[in-house]
Amino acid sequence: MESIGFIGLGKMGSAMAGSLLRAGFKLQVYNRTPEKAAALVAQGAKLAHEPSDTAQPGGIVITMLANDRAVEDVVDGDRGFVERLGPGGIHLSMSTVSPRLAHRLAEQHERYGVEYVAAPVFGRPEAAAARKLWICLSGSTTAKQRVRPILDSIGQGTFDFGEESAAAHVVKLTGNFLLASAIEALAEAFVFGEKNGIDRNSLADVLGGTLFACPAYQTYASAIAQQLFRPAGFTVELGLKDVDLVLQTAADSRTPLPLAGLLHDRFLAAVAKGRGDFDWSSVWLESAENAGLSVDDKHVE
Amino acid sequence: MESIGFIGLGKMGSAMAGSLLRAGFKLQVYNRTPEKAAALVAQGAKLAHEPSDTAQPGGIVITMLANDRAVEDVVDGDRGFVERLGPGGIHLSMSTVSPRLAHRLAEQHERYGVEYVAAPVFGRPEAAAARKLWICLSGSTTAKQRVRPILDSIGQGTFDFGEESAAAHVVKLTGNFLLASAIEALAEAFVFGEKNGIDRNSLADVLGGTLFACPAYQTYASAIAQQLFRPAGFTVELGLKDVDLVLQTAADSRTPLPLAGLLHDRFLAAVAKGRGDFDWSSVWLESAENAGLSVDDKHVE
Amino acid sequence: MESIGFIGLGKMGSAMAGSLLRAGFKLQVYNRTPEKAAALVAQGAKLAHEPSDTAQPGGIVITMLANDRAVEDVVDGDRGFVERLGPGGIHLSMSTVSPRLAHRLAEQHERYGVEYVAAPVFGRPEAAAARKLWICLSGSTTAKQRVRPILDSIGQGTFDFGEESAAAHVVKLTGNFLLASAIEALAEAFVFGEKNGIDRNSLADVLGGTLFACPAYQTYASAIAQQLFRPAGFTVELGLKDVDLVLQTAADSRTPLPLAGLLHDRFLAAVAKGRGDFDWSSVWLESAENAGLSVDDKHVE
Amino acid sequence: MESIGFIGLGKMGSAMAGSLLRAGFKLQVYNRTPEKAAALVAQGAKLAHEPSDTAQPGGIVITMLANDRAVEDVVDGDRGFVERLGPGGIHLSMSTVSPRLAHRLAEQHERYGVEYVAAPVFGRPEAAAARKLWICLSGSTTAKQRVRPILDSIGQGTFDFGEESAAAHVVKLTGNFLLASAIEALAEAFVFGEKNGIDRNSLADVLGGTLFACPAYQTYASAIAQQLFRPAGFTVELGLKDVDLVLQTAADSRTPLPLAGLLHDRFLAAVAKGRGDFDWSSVWLESAENAGLSVDDKHVE
Repeated sequence: MESIGFIGLGKMGSAMAGSLLRAGFKLQVYNRTPEKAAALVAQGAKLAHEPSDTAQPGGIVITMLANDRAVEDVVDGDRGFVERLGPGGIHLSMSTVSPRLAHRLAEQHERYGVEYVAAPVFGRPEAAAARKLWICLSGSTTAKQRVRPILDSIGQGTFDFGEESAAAHVVKLTGNFLLASAIEALAEAFVFGEKNGIDRNSLADVLGGTLFACPAYQTYASAIAQQLFRPAGFTVELGLKDVDLVLQTAADSRTPLPLAGLLHDRFLAAVAKGRGDFDWSSVWLESAENAGLSVDDKHVE
Repeated sequence: MESIGFIGLGKMGSAMAGSLLRAGFKLQVYNRTPEKAAALVAQGAKLAHEPSDTAQPGGIVITMLANDRAVEDVVDGDRGFVERLGPGGIHLSMSTVSPRLAHRLAEQHERYGVEYVAAPVFGRPEAAAARKLWICLSGSTTAKQRVRPILDSIGQGTFDFGEESAAAHVVKLTGNFLLASAIEALAEAFVFGEKNGIDRNSLADVLGGTLFACPAYQTYASAIAQQLFRPAGFTVELGLKDVDLVLQTAADSRTPLPLAGLLHDRFLAAVAKGRGDFDWSSVWLESAENAGLSVDDKHVE
Repeated sequence: MESIGFIGLGKMGSAMAGSLLRAGFKLQVYNRTPEKAAALVAQGAKLAHEPSDTAQPGGIVITMLANDRAVEDVVDGDRGFVERLGPGGIHLSMSTVSPRLAHRLAEQHERYGVEYVAAPVFGRPEAAAARKLWICLSGSTTAKQRVRPILDSIGQGTFDFGEESAAAHVVKLTGNFLLASAIEALAEAFVFGEKNGIDRNSLADVLGGTLFACPAYQTYASAIAQQLFRPAGFTVELGLKDVDLVLQTAADSRTPLPLAGLLHDRFLAAVAKGRGDFDWSSVWLESAENAGLSVDDKHVE
Repeated sequence: MESIGFIGLGKMGSAMAGSLLRAGFKLQVYNRTPEKAAALVAQGAKLAHEPSDTAQPGGIVITMLANDRAVEDVVDGDRGFVERLGPGGIHLSMSTVSPRLAHRLAEQHERYGVEYVAAPVFGRPEAAAARKLWICLSGSTTAKQRVRPILDSIGQGTFDFGEESAAAHVVKLTGNFLLASAIEALAEAFVFGEKNGIDRNSLADVLGGTLFACPAYQTYASAIAQQLFRPAGFTVELGLKDVDLVLQTAADSRTPLPLAGLLHDRFLAAVAKGRGDFDWSSVWLESAENAGLSVDDKHVE
């Protein structure tokens, strides 16, 4: 089993690293706040004190971080891992980052003989712990073969989108755009129902039981019906970040996306009103307020 | 078994009436163009020459028609069935019509002692023939009990939305709004993918196989991936009609629905360009043209 | 001087009728609530007790009413003026009504030998009293010639849009759409400025003094800068009515107008929040609330 | 008279520099392609070979460049002018740049003792040559006093927005947002008119002669009526750049601006279709195509 570097030990990263340890991989883990590594160290991971310490020459380093900047911070500079990883090395990039960054990193990595493999995931931390993630993959064929055992230890399925470094990230953003769109549609639908006398729970039942019998709709219809907006599974702020990556990528590729523009406005309004840490299904509140409904704060807590 | 009037023998109506005949109901059927009744008559239905001829005093008449006006045409006037249906009668209204019309008919029917029961359905003609429709129901408790055997002979499940005459129609419109929203989101997503080098079929696979493993998304993602926009399962023009009923009902209840406004613009553009009879998933073409993609007419045929 | 019927004595109608009396015309005036006719009767107008009493056979009747329905109410039926007006008569229709109604009335009038001339106006009541209105005109050439002296007694200029009965109404709606659009743009601009530390009055000065040195922008920039939303010069509800006529006419002619859709949502939100009787420049409040600004109710009163 | 550095000799910059020379200022001018300086050198300007050569210690340097990056390129680094300008110096920043850049430059300049004064302008090159620009100003009081004679030699009026370094840039962006909004509104209005049989030139006459008798509306209504989209006075690409600066600044300040989102989509669609170098009033073409009108390419040339 290869020894692997793993950077980024938030909820998702920790769950994924745990699955890898259980599958028998040796991990050198790094997190900006090292306390988060404790549980993994107890399971056998070795704690690295700098990003560069996670890398073995010619080895593999996985990143699972919050945004573009966090990835750039562990890649570049004296402390960064790319130079040490060097010829034959692979950067397995599993965060949701911009295609723009993927292009830039792929070029930069090449100068060090490192390959960039994109492998962002769909799924929540529980899915990561249970090896139930879905993985989108793109990169060179040989590199993808080499990381296969890693991905098989985390996910229940992998979808291959070819050799282009940014492709898998585009697909991940597409998925998040569709989730956000489904939430906005549900939010408007439930406000429409409410203003016309329809019971929220009955509406959630018919939608989740018939036309939209899939987890995304069932989860969010239920959250809206029961007004369960805190604690967040995925925050408004993260939703806004992803929609803005979609809009950036769409502008770069000259693709007007009016629905993404609408989502941007909704999430931005929620942030402006102090709801950035609510679950992103809470955009129901924005639709509701614009329809003159008085929002029940008791449910919001 | 009750003898029932059935008005409206389009694809959906014919399939529903067929299921009722097979379940043992006696039907008096009416259609503006009587030729469409031939197959049902061969199965034992009796052909009525006027809408009023479908009604037995105190009986039940089902309507399954294209729009508000078509329903009004068979209800009112000398030829209409309501007066003849009279005290104890039930009008079982299964078309997708406006809540505004439902309110008006419920009031008008009351003057003749007739009850209005709303029971619009989700599903395609094949589902209707296979008794697999989903039914939304609202009306008085006694009337709903009386029509139960009819609904059980057509659908696989019924969702009750209380006593208000328009309620089930609101839910039906909500469902169609969500379907149209899903199509718009998919259309933008596929154009976004295409402009960024993602293969359409691979994208359809990952979406339908993971986040959105439900028939609505699978059907429309596949139609867009393969550019199968004709013949239409449900036309752009019918989509526009339903979105406009949503907007009308939303305006009446003072509910801003920006996503519905966007859908209206998309479908209207498609109609303006001569694509009114394409499948409503063809709004992909609108997004694609606005992104500067050249549309492949060969696939469109 | 011809004897003229004048129906509709709201603020605009009364001011216009006053100008006509001062110009020497004889008027038979009608209003649903006859009290509003008192000042005009004191100036020499004759009070009619039914719409039909305003008409002389072969004469001219002017309508200046709030909406389509109000016009229909005085035209049709036993009390309506069209039958009595009869061959050679002219209905000079100066209200802001739908092109759809204009088409219908023109056809119906023709059966009585009456010509429909559209002549909606731009301007406030003060402009009407000072003969400073701008008039859009369409109808047959001979009928337009005959009403010329009337229009010259009310307006400072007339723009001819040909023979088509609805044309002038289309232009009137276009103007109101542009006004509403300017208000929405100003509302967003002022909220943008406010969130970035720009003084509202300074912003109004630079806009009204440079790029947009025209009354529409100066009026609304000043109203927003000083938060003078009540009493209304033109209410949110009337704005919504006109935007909805634009959307109806656009749908009939298959014209997607995304900006009109946005205006509909804004005005509808304002009505939903109980601000229907505020000035339409108060849509600033909608933008401000969505940006998380706390609205100052003291200014709103 | 002070000796002044002037960087950026496009159409606007050259016209402004010419006015300064005529007013008696001594100029050191710089442009990336020095050929554009020839006419000014003939009028007495001195040609600088590096941005830093334009600066006198403690003097004033004016920048009038195309975008943020162009300004950064002449400020920073060995060739940049800020270090040489040094204590007591003023950077008079007249380009349309982002408030975000203004904040960053103001901080950076401070380390060298240089003051940042924002003074973006409204007006076309002809206005610059005729000393008819309108200027928005912000910066420290003393610095603003010192640059006053310069501004008075270029503009017909200056609007002061206080001491905050980015304020004048916010106002400039606000103005361009309002211009773009007016163009979109006119574009939709003219398409609406066209689909309803209204002559374009007659519509331009009534709008420019009554409600919107100000140069912005008259210019763009006339351009749309006559379909004069090339050569561009201001291109779609520049319009998109400015709208995107508005959206960036709005996101930074948490201000949802749905109309700006709509403008982004329109301009982006035009760029996607290869119309980036058309005049920004050509977004009429986008509305027209979405309404099914066939665009007349002869007029477009």
